[in-house]
Amino acid sequence: MTSPAGVFAAALTPQKPDLSPDPQGLVRHCKNLLAGGCDGLSPLGTTGEANSFSVAERMALLDAIAASDIPPAKLIPGTGSCSLTDAVQLTRRVVEMGAAGALLLPPFYYKGVSDDGLFGFFAEIIQRVGDAKLKIYLYHFPQMTGLQLSLDLIARLLKAYPDTVVGLKNSSGDWANMEAMLKTFPGFRMFAGSERFLLQTLRLGGPGCISASTNVTAPLCADIYRNWRGADADARQERATRVRAVIEGFPAIAALKAIVARQTGNAAWTTLRPPLVRLTAEQERDLFQKLQAAGFALQAAAAE
Amino acid sequence: MTSPAGVFAAALTPQKPDLSPDPQGLVRHCKNLLAGGCDGLSPLGTTGEANSFSVAERMALLDAIAASDIPPAKLIPGTGSCSLTDAVQLTRRVVEMGAAGALLLPPFYYKGVSDDGLFGFFAEIIQRVGDAKLKIYLYHFPQMTGLQLSLDLIARLLKAYPDTVVGLKNSSGDWANMEAMLKTFPGFRMFAGSERFLLQTLRLGGPGCISASTNVTAPLCADIYRNWRGADADARQERATRVRAVIEGFPAIAALKAIVARQTGNAAWTTLRPPLVRLTAEQERDLFQKLQAAGFALQAAAAE
Repeated sequence: MTSPAGVFAAALTPQKPDLSPDPQGLVRHCKNLLAGGCDGLSPLGTTGEANSFSVAERMALLDAIAASDIPPAKLIPGTGSCSLTDAVQLTRRVVEMGAAGALLLPPFYYKGVSDDGLFGFFAEIIQRVGDAKLKIYLYHFPQMTGLQLSLDLIARLLKAYPDTVVGLKNSSGDWANMEAMLKTFPGFRMFAGSERFLLQTLRLGGPGCISASTNVTAPLCADIYRNWRGADADARQERATRVRAVIEGFPAIAALKAIVARQTGNAAWTTLRPPLVRLTAEQERDLFQKLQAAGFALQAAAAE
Repeated sequence: MTSPAGVFAAALTPQKPDLSPDPQGLVRHCKNLLAGGCDGLSPLGTTGEANSFSVAERMALLDAIAASDIPPAKLIPGTGSCSLTDAVQLTRRVVEMGAAGALLLPPFYYKGVSDDGLFGFFAEIIQRVGDAKLKIYLYHFPQMTGLQLSLDLIARLLKAYPDTVVGLKNSSGDWANMEAMLKTFPGFRMFAGSERFLLQTLRLGGPGCISASTNVTAPLCADIYRNWRGADADARQERATRVRAVIEGFPAIAALKAIVARQTGNAAWTTLRPPLVRLTAEQERDLFQKLQAAGFALQAAAAE
């Protein structure tokens, strides 16, 4: 199997009016994303609201994807939980379905825990899953987890599990941190957590990005990825960054759902599970105006 | 039913060598705590490592307590989760077993969420549980959740659900915040999250404390609670605070498990689920020395 690379979307999860996740809606959205320029998908991450769902709800979403014709080699689903046993169960399922990897958060309830404790958590999962096919992408998102995945911890995991711990999604938004990871661990597949850093990541040998906003910016990002060695790559990156900057000015997951609702004509897309809330009508108008000013096409991308 | 008050322990959860929680061990520990001076118990909170367990593991612990002769009116178990559906399932079980209340964390994965989103989370749980017997104690622990439960949010919840949202555990460690809650909402049952603030809380009309360290300091805290109007109450508080201060100098949950292991002669108590790790032998020696210097009796409290 070739290693996953390119533009990945941290897929949004559509929800029914009773706030239950919509497995078939997720499958349709995933297919739209692959058709629209994504090289791969990370469903059930932060953007997919996975930690707001029960394990049974998350398993049903994974089951629907597994039963579809989406190629598992294009998938790095989120399997993280603060519960060790839940993380094991979800990670096992992702290995079984033949996914390219599992995107694994550190255990995010406790704060101020030691590297020994974080190492113990990942080691326990790897041993309990006990499958050579397991490929872990660590999920570094200190703004949500309140935890750091230090270079020391990564080095220790790479030494203990060189065939299993293969990469990382870096959502820190801190380029100095991404650069340090890319330079310290050549060959370690560190995806940028935002397309804002796509070109810089590719230039340092990284595989691509896994981003929330690629739910709507996949074509812009694919344009960078296909042409990143070209003379005009910086201009392509600037175009994508302008759109990303608009989305960052709003609660991002609600903003992305509002855009997909507008593009698909399916208002059900604006449903979010608390604590997330949909944009107000005024925020929506403001968002759409700013996107158009940034050159972003809001017309229907794919009818639903 | 009289409202719960006094010294509550956020009960530790004993674990087997495979890191699975030990339901019968928890029941024994709860009984020891009640016999040792606790007025009530909050099992399955932060100290109980609840968020490191799956819902099935948490339900098995609740089932064991429900099947025991521990009076449910003395219980305010933790039922929080970042997953809405999990929090509903656990809260339902706690109402069914006749507990005095449910200790409910805000949804702790996302950060920077709005008061609207937090209100929506609690409102959704209250409506889904749909039982007049439900009594919610909000669990304010910003160091773990990264979230604030603002006075505005509490006021809004009290207005919407005056018979359901009855209290709060304040683990902020910030007396100014506790004082503001006690003074702003007379009759709202705000428990201090540490016995360090027990006397101050009682003097402002609060019901008591729900604390991690009362797993081992219950007699000292009961001594404050039984005599808080007495002339020597401050001296009693100082004695308890000295012991609490020692425990705060170590990773608290690991330290408490080490003390219970020593007191019961049952080394299995030192087992923790990652990301928590047991104290080193050197830390243990240091802890025990400092406790003895603070006048804390380490001899066996109850054999197991």
